[in-house]
Amino acid sequence: MSKFIHEKIELLQQLRTALYNRDFLLTWEQADEDLNAVTLVAESFKELHKAGISFRTFETGLAISIFRDNSTRTRFSFASAANALGLTLSDLDEEKSQIAHGETVRETATMISFLAEIVGIRDDMFLGEGNKYMREFGAAIQESYEQGILHQRPNIVNLQCDIDHPTQALADLMQLKNTFGSLENLRGKKIAMTWAYSPSYGKPLSVPQGIIGLMSRFGMDVSLAYPEGYGLIPEVIELAKRQSVQHNGKFEVVNSMDEAFENADIVYPKSWAPYHVMQRRTVLLNNSDKAGLKELEKECLANNAKFKNWECDEQKMKLTKNGEALYMHCLPADISDVSCTEGEVSRKVFEKYRLGTYTEASYKPFVIAAMMFLMRMQHPAEKLQAIVNRNQKRSV
Amino acid sequence: MSKFIHEKIELLQQLRTALYNRDFLLTWEQADEDLNAVTLVAESFKELHKAGISFRTFETGLAISIFRDNSTRTRFSFASAANALGLTLSDLDEEKSQIAHGETVRETATMISFLAEIVGIRDDMFLGEGNKYMREFGAAIQESYEQGILHQRPNIVNLQCDIDHPTQALADLMQLKNTFGSLENLRGKKIAMTWAYSPSYGKPLSVPQGIIGLMSRFGMDVSLAYPEGYGLIPEVIELAKRQSVQHNGKFEVVNSMDEAFENADIVYPKSWAPYHVMQRRTVLLNNSDKAGLKELEKECLANNAKFKNWECDEQKMKLTKNGEALYMHCLPADISDVSCTEGEVSRKVFEKYRLGTYTEASYKPFVIAAMMFLMRMQHPAEKLQAIVNRNQKRSV
Amino acid sequence: MSKFIHEKIELLQQLRTALYNRDFLLTWEQADEDLNAVTLVAESFKELHKAGISFRTFETGLAISIFRDNSTRTRFSFASAANALGLTLSDLDEEKSQIAHGETVRETATMISFLAEIVGIRDDMFLGEGNKYMREFGAAIQESYEQGILHQRPNIVNLQCDIDHPTQALADLMQLKNTFGSLENLRGKKIAMTWAYSPSYGKPLSVPQGIIGLMSRFGMDVSLAYPEGYGLIPEVIELAKRQSVQHNGKFEVVNSMDEAFENADIVYPKSWAPYHVMQRRTVLLNNSDKAGLKELEKECLANNAKFKNWECDEQKMKLTKNGEALYMHCLPADISDVSCTEGEVSRKVFEKYRLGTYTEASYKPFVIAAMMFLMRMQHPAEKLQAIVNRNQKRSV
Repeated sequence: MSKFIHEKIELLQQLRTALYNRDFLLTWEQADEDLNAVTLVAESFKELHKAGISFRTFETGLAISIFRDNSTRTRFSFASAANALGLTLSDLDEEKSQIAHGETVRETATMISFLAEIVGIRDDMFLGEGNKYMREFGAAIQESYEQGILHQRPNIVNLQCDIDHPTQALADLMQLKNTFGSLENLRGKKIAMTWAYSPSYGKPLSVPQGIIGLMSRFGMDVSLAYPEGYGLIPEVIELAKRQSVQHNGKFEVVNSMDEAFENADIVYPKSWAPYHVMQRRTVLLNNSDKAGLKELEKECLANNAKFKNWECDEQKMKLTKNGEALYMHCLPADISDVSCTEGEVSRKVFEKYRLGTYTEASYKPFVIAAMMFLMRMQHPAEKLQAIVNRNQKRSV
Repeated sequence: MSKFIHEKIELLQQLRTALYNRDFLLTWEQADEDLNAVTLVAESFKELHKAGISFRTFETGLAISIFRDNSTRTRFSFASAANALGLTLSDLDEEKSQIAHGETVRETATMISFLAEIVGIRDDMFLGEGNKYMREFGAAIQESYEQGILHQRPNIVNLQCDIDHPTQALADLMQLKNTFGSLENLRGKKIAMTWAYSPSYGKPLSVPQGIIGLMSRFGMDVSLAYPEGYGLIPEVIELAKRQSVQHNGKFEVVNSMDEAFENADIVYPKSWAPYHVMQRRTVLLNNSDKAGLKELEKECLANNAKFKNWECDEQKMKLTKNGEALYMHCLPADISDVSCTEGEVSRKVFEKYRLGTYTEASYKPFVIAAMMFLMRMQHPAEKLQAIVNRNQKRSV
Repeated sequence: MSKFIHEKIELLQQLRTALYNRDFLLTWEQADEDLNAVTLVAESFKELHKAGISFRTFETGLAISIFRDNSTRTRFSFASAANALGLTLSDLDEEKSQIAHGETVRETATMISFLAEIVGIRDDMFLGEGNKYMREFGAAIQESYEQGILHQRPNIVNLQCDIDHPTQALADLMQLKNTFGSLENLRGKKIAMTWAYSPSYGKPLSVPQGIIGLMSRFGMDVSLAYPEGYGLIPEVIELAKRQSVQHNGKFEVVNSMDEAFENADIVYPKSWAPYHVMQRRTVLLNNSDKAGLKELEKECLANNAKFKNWECDEQKMKLTKNGEALYMHCLPADISDVSCTEGEVSRKVFEKYRLGTYTEASYKPFVIAAMMFLMRMQHPAEKLQAIVNRNQKRSV
């Protein structure tokens, strides 16, 4: 264990990380060195956990979660990360609070933060709102901190918004780093981020956006594929293009799953709702227009049904590099003949890669713990070294 | 830090506190020395927190919460206090329990208390019931403790009942102590606890009752103002009068916001439902009489609407001492043009004092932690000294 | 304290326990030595708690709970046990997760288990499903553990299924051990596990099954009584018979409460739904057939009403050994004139034994903590000794 972590700490010491006391809202707002630091700390934590050594960092303190949409794995990843660091999870259940009664975001933000170190927020339902809400929250606690009302300024972790899903994208990056040996080795690898058919609609755009927004920074060959009309937020596509150029990678948008899969090293077939549908849906949700939502759903499902052949099956997998591309998914996947009749991926393909997707998911608690650690520790390499030296077993 | 806390501990040592192993249900059941002790410990905890020093007191143990009404700030204050002391919050969600199925209060009380140190209860909806419920709960665990069924007898913190809201009133007292320099300096200061217009109805009486029940003990000039018909529980008004006489203060009831504001050092404009309305409402709620509740609401809102001029605006603030009285509110306030069209306070006045109300709220987690500490530690000064000497950082 | 625990540890050292890294689903899957070990550790923990000494075992780690039915005492017992061992409770609220959306059990099992030590599951509504679900869950995490996806394999505690309620039955065993002096002393004692009238229907079979499945292993004289048609799962009755023969005890099924009470040392009168009704109910629940469920309820209540004389009253208690049998109940009981008009037990009998039932319940948190400890610690006697030597106070 110690040699592995020793190397990570040495690398970490050489990085000038700027995550301390900042919010983590979009991966593309963070420098390469910061993302690198997240992977190094996450790898160290994973190794410590495997060895039964505690990486508890806090004696007391709250990690607050605000989930404005359902969640299993992110909820448990956040809970696990908080617990491992010694923070106590406190969930803001908006139904049980007085928030419905006209309380402003900025007030709530301060009211719950007096003894908080971290605030994790998931808000992915409304286009143009989730990320905005996080920034509003951040500005409010910043004011209270500067005014001396908060003794410490908790930092915000984006647990999925309308734009990005950084904890997922970074867990995915760790899976890639682990699969291909290093971040450097990702250069030139082709990743197919493609839409896939699903019998449901209204799935957020944040995963595909998070993937192209992150993977376009490592010199990869990013192929984004979707049926005509299923576009993402245009600014994110522009960003991916720009980053791709900067990092000597490639970026293309195609309207064929086959084309994207062609010679791909990695495939990420996953359904999402078209950008313009999410826009209409946001208006309808804001107006609580149930009839309109029903109508939109009907219309969309009918449209989706035209693209049932956008299923990741064995035939399509054969198109990939040696027919053996890495299959990725944020889970849960719509698996044909398992969780639905026709879905994103065939039963056979999913079963072949199932355990791989579990491994992919296994990085998330450690990624979140690493983000929290880097946001709260001014001298993370030093502190991590202290934790390693302490060598405290997780149980008696 | 250490000099500040050293002074607090010295003062604490001189007090004969009687809070150990008792419930905290009404401030007026506690001696002056006990309330003084709460402020001293709360100030010490706040200072320790600011300095990044842990005041963790427990290795393990539960702090149970029972919220029979919505709550954000008290819920998080309780959660924060429990966490800071090393206790784990365990919420009794009555919907998920078997309580609906004929379980008696006395049985539940014991069933959840085997490893509990503290039980926090909010029960403010039904006049004549909340405080009674807490006492019933207390009697039940007392019996189980005396019979040796419980190894320790957890203590109850009233997190708001139909009569008092002690954690709020004590946080408010700390705000006053901090603003005016000492509890002694409150002598002669005029506080206007006044009703204010709100577009909602049915707000509990516990805050105004808690304020007059506490502030009448410090020689203050307490002016309680409300429109005719908006009276509080008569016994609490009698108590405030009596205490005021004992402590050489003043107490008056007036039917004019202007009169109360006149030369006031502190104003606390806050809506509540009239006592007799809460009585009718309690009967209707007990009978689940939805039509009756709707009718009562309609009637009350119509009556409230006659008093829309009971708004704390700049004009009224000019009546106060030098036009600069301290504005207080337990939050969330009904702010005109912000959270409603017409409310308790004008936008301008609230904005001027907004951060002050956040500071007021910031005392609550420390007040609750101090109450818990004093209820569980037989020798609090000694234990607090041990915590200071230990000098354990909150994070590695 | 130390002498008492010293003896327990000595006895524990002589046992070859096999609970390490296994699930605890049915008491009859565990060897006598394992059950003995549970009582020894539970007694030690209870004694430590009484003395104010922490038996915290973990620095960090999650104890996950999955409650598919309402619960108060088991929920708090599990929460208390987790907290006392230093584990943080994380509840999987299936309504707030994505489980409804076609996620498979095996996937969820792994997704929530990355940093978990224990998973407690209550699933008692559907005959033939609760225990099966637990095994499915166990197989899933076993696979992930063997594949290296999980660093550690959390163990499952059955918090009540359709077949057994081991934490209840073991708490009951501790009550018997404590009442009669030792497990050996239970030999020849008569326990009447009898059906009793209740104005509700659909109560699980797991308590009576758990009791006959456990108590038939100590040479006791087990008398199971129910009105014709109110049978339990046949296999469990067969098991109890078999065990009874193996341990030189007695086992009988009678259709008279009086007969069962005759000369009994212990009576456990408790309502349950007939096995064949639970079978029908399971089908209806699976089909969400509300009309069918209503009809079944009506029919069953009408049938129940024929047996209102199956009430444990003073008259019946006189039939027991010296009229002074130990009365047991898992709580909450349907108490005539208290929680219902006519129920399982008369007010007078319950009141006489009420505090005894609280004591019975008080063992549960310690039993669960002991099970967790034995499932996670490879050398439990050694570790318990280390905890005793450490002598860490629960508070400063």
